[in-house]
Amino acid sequence: MMLGEVLAIGDELIHGALLDTNSKYLAGQLEALGVVVQRFTVVSDDPAQLRAAIADCCARADVVVATGGLGPTLDDRTRDVVAELCGGPLQFDAASWQQTQAWLVSRGRPVPDSNRRQAMLPPGASALPNPVGTAPGFAVTIGRARFFAMPGVPREMHVMLRDQVLPAIQAMPGLAPIAQAWLRVLGPSEAALGERIEDFMHAGREPAVGITASGGLLTIRIVARGATRAAAAAACEATAAELRPRLGSWLFAEGTCELPQLVLDRLRRAGRTLAVAESCTGGLIAARLTDIAGASEVLQGGVVAYANEVKQGLLEVPVELLAAHGAVSEAVAAAMAENLRRLAGSDLAVATTGIAGPGGGSADKPVGTVCFAIAGANGTRAWTVRIPDLGRGFIRDRAVFEVWRALLSEP
Amino acid sequence: MMLGEVLAIGDELIHGALLDTNSKYLAGQLEALGVVVQRFTVVSDDPAQLRAAIADCCARADVVVATGGLGPTLDDRTRDVVAELCGGPLQFDAASWQQTQAWLVSRGRPVPDSNRRQAMLPPGASALPNPVGTAPGFAVTIGRARFFAMPGVPREMHVMLRDQVLPAIQAMPGLAPIAQAWLRVLGPSEAALGERIEDFMHAGREPAVGITASGGLLTIRIVARGATRAAAAAACEATAAELRPRLGSWLFAEGTCELPQLVLDRLRRAGRTLAVAESCTGGLIAARLTDIAGASEVLQGGVVAYANEVKQGLLEVPVELLAAHGAVSEAVAAAMAENLRRLAGSDLAVATTGIAGPGGGSADKPVGTVCFAIAGANGTRAWTVRIPDLGRGFIRDRAVFEVWRALLSEP
Repeated sequence: MMLGEVLAIGDELIHGALLDTNSKYLAGQLEALGVVVQRFTVVSDDPAQLRAAIADCCARADVVVATGGLGPTLDDRTRDVVAELCGGPLQFDAASWQQTQAWLVSRGRPVPDSNRRQAMLPPGASALPNPVGTAPGFAVTIGRARFFAMPGVPREMHVMLRDQVLPAIQAMPGLAPIAQAWLRVLGPSEAALGERIEDFMHAGREPAVGITASGGLLTIRIVARGATRAAAAAACEATAAELRPRLGSWLFAEGTCELPQLVLDRLRRAGRTLAVAESCTGGLIAARLTDIAGASEVLQGGVVAYANEVKQGLLEVPVELLAAHGAVSEAVAAAMAENLRRLAGSDLAVATTGIAGPGGGSADKPVGTVCFAIAGANGTRAWTVRIPDLGRGFIRDRAVFEVWRALLSEP
Repeated sequence: MMLGEVLAIGDELIHGALLDTNSKYLAGQLEALGVVVQRFTVVSDDPAQLRAAIADCCARADVVVATGGLGPTLDDRTRDVVAELCGGPLQFDAASWQQTQAWLVSRGRPVPDSNRRQAMLPPGASALPNPVGTAPGFAVTIGRARFFAMPGVPREMHVMLRDQVLPAIQAMPGLAPIAQAWLRVLGPSEAALGERIEDFMHAGREPAVGITASGGLLTIRIVARGATRAAAAAACEATAAELRPRLGSWLFAEGTCELPQLVLDRLRRAGRTLAVAESCTGGLIAARLTDIAGASEVLQGGVVAYANEVKQGLLEVPVELLAAHGAVSEAVAAAMAENLRRLAGSDLAVATTGIAGPGGGSADKPVGTVCFAIAGANGTRAWTVRIPDLGRGFIRDRAVFEVWRALLSEP
């Protein structure tokens, strides 16, 4: 078994200026290789803290993958601290400096002298070239661990990880392949789902089964280990097959990719285009779809109809309909979807209109009331969900999940 | 000086199903009180790993704030592990069970027996009531540290932190107030900005100055400590006053809140409404604005004009204009903004149209070319930015930052 840890370095991560998204990504990539990851650490650039954190991680794990603190400015100190831990001064790596200069010149940028700092490496370290930025990474042995330092900029890290760090880890002894399966559930509370599948959730069960709650979406994660990747995948699927009958209509999607990707894949395969009319979700559905390269093959566009003037003007919802039913109504959701489908010339259109709060609720339509509609060649379906008022973010996220469910269930 | 650490607990955080956003929030709240936070740890629910991580944190810090692992299901083990560390069995807390039952009943939900597990507390622990969920938290002393366990669900954690944990920490001795200032910069590379302000960035400087890069936006963070909150704020401002002349037109915003909030505040104060016509940003601008409660006072709505049919149909961009200039052009951006301003009846409208990649670029208009327009009562301004092709996410984020800058600079 190869134990791994992930270390994210930077004052900005600790002091609230930036959210660490690298650790989750790195852990996923390591686990796909079969590395067992149990802990992430996020640490500031403070030299004493950084030194202690690197030493701690390298004492516990066989492989430590670190990001951040390799920038050209003086507040980036990963190189210096690792050199101290390795017991010697930094050494200038001429090849790295060549690459950094060439990269800057190829982009028509000046070559600031401060970038020279980035070509200094700890003693005994091998440089990891950076084809998409100025900061080379490096690999070095610290204690029992192989320590990989990569830039904190996600795009630079992704390329270095894929092309250099993962192949190096794959060549190390001790990997045990794992497989994951995710079952996506909407409907029950986490406690109710937990009771339904409680006999699967005991510590030490192989494959392991866990539940994650996020914005009303429950994800059952199955993680299996095996002698081969195929054996791990088979063990995963065996547990999934036992779970499915317990879940019934709660289960609406499977697959270890994000739901917007599943939605785009399904519509693309069916050759269908989509448009979205968003009131309470305010652009979230469109933004999550257009995050994905190639979304334009499916998504024609959308309207964020926040004000009633926009519902009337751009989406041609009759003022009488708004007056008779209110903006938050199935009738208005259906009109939004139908009109947008016609105006955008798409095969399908979905609409959301609801009360995300904190204000705007009434006894009749409390905060969390959201009406949905989906319009297609076979007609329009409209429905209402009373989402628990667990905050504006929760209500918006839950409404987006409802749209993914509808699009994944559409015949 | 009071040392703090943040601990996020859960298999789902380690194994890729959920991004840890709690730690950043918690650190920010602790730092606002004057707690010095240097490290976060994220750990799985594995009992041995969890026990080691809690013991490590509690050996290093005066206060440890933990979230997660308090759910009703068997894979949540924080209570059990802390009880082991405290050297005794879990004890049933009747008052907590009453509250959990009352909360479920008040929402018209069944009372699953598994929720009873959540009312079990480690020996010596005080319960932290949860007014918005079923999992009570607890506070207990472990080693040198006061350890606070809270639920992982952000909404529940936020309320418990604000009402119970922060007041308890504020009553502890050893707090030193801090203040932060953020200067937002668009234009230079991180290295170029670092050289310009290098003499501010040495380790140990008080107040500390650091640079964060995210999607092309550079944030200069100033962190000051003082005997009082006012003294810390004054020290912060003194450093900011020295930095501003170095930054010139690079500097476009200040304030430790997120840019969409600054934009909404500015427009609300000016009594202006806004609409957004998004092509390459695909709903991101609208989604980030509507994340904020009260956005509807400013944002009328928007159009996500991904396909040319939507630019023509919904935004009434003439087909001849699209044919003559191409969809990615200042002329089309200007038409999108002007037409949407009229159609939505807003005071201002902004438009984006560009090539986010990975496909779609040409020699003339490479990936990263984005055209912007802003239309108002005094006319329309259109401009083009060649964003470095550092990936689709980078280009979209950088384009959104450009819009924030334009809206914050608009007279």
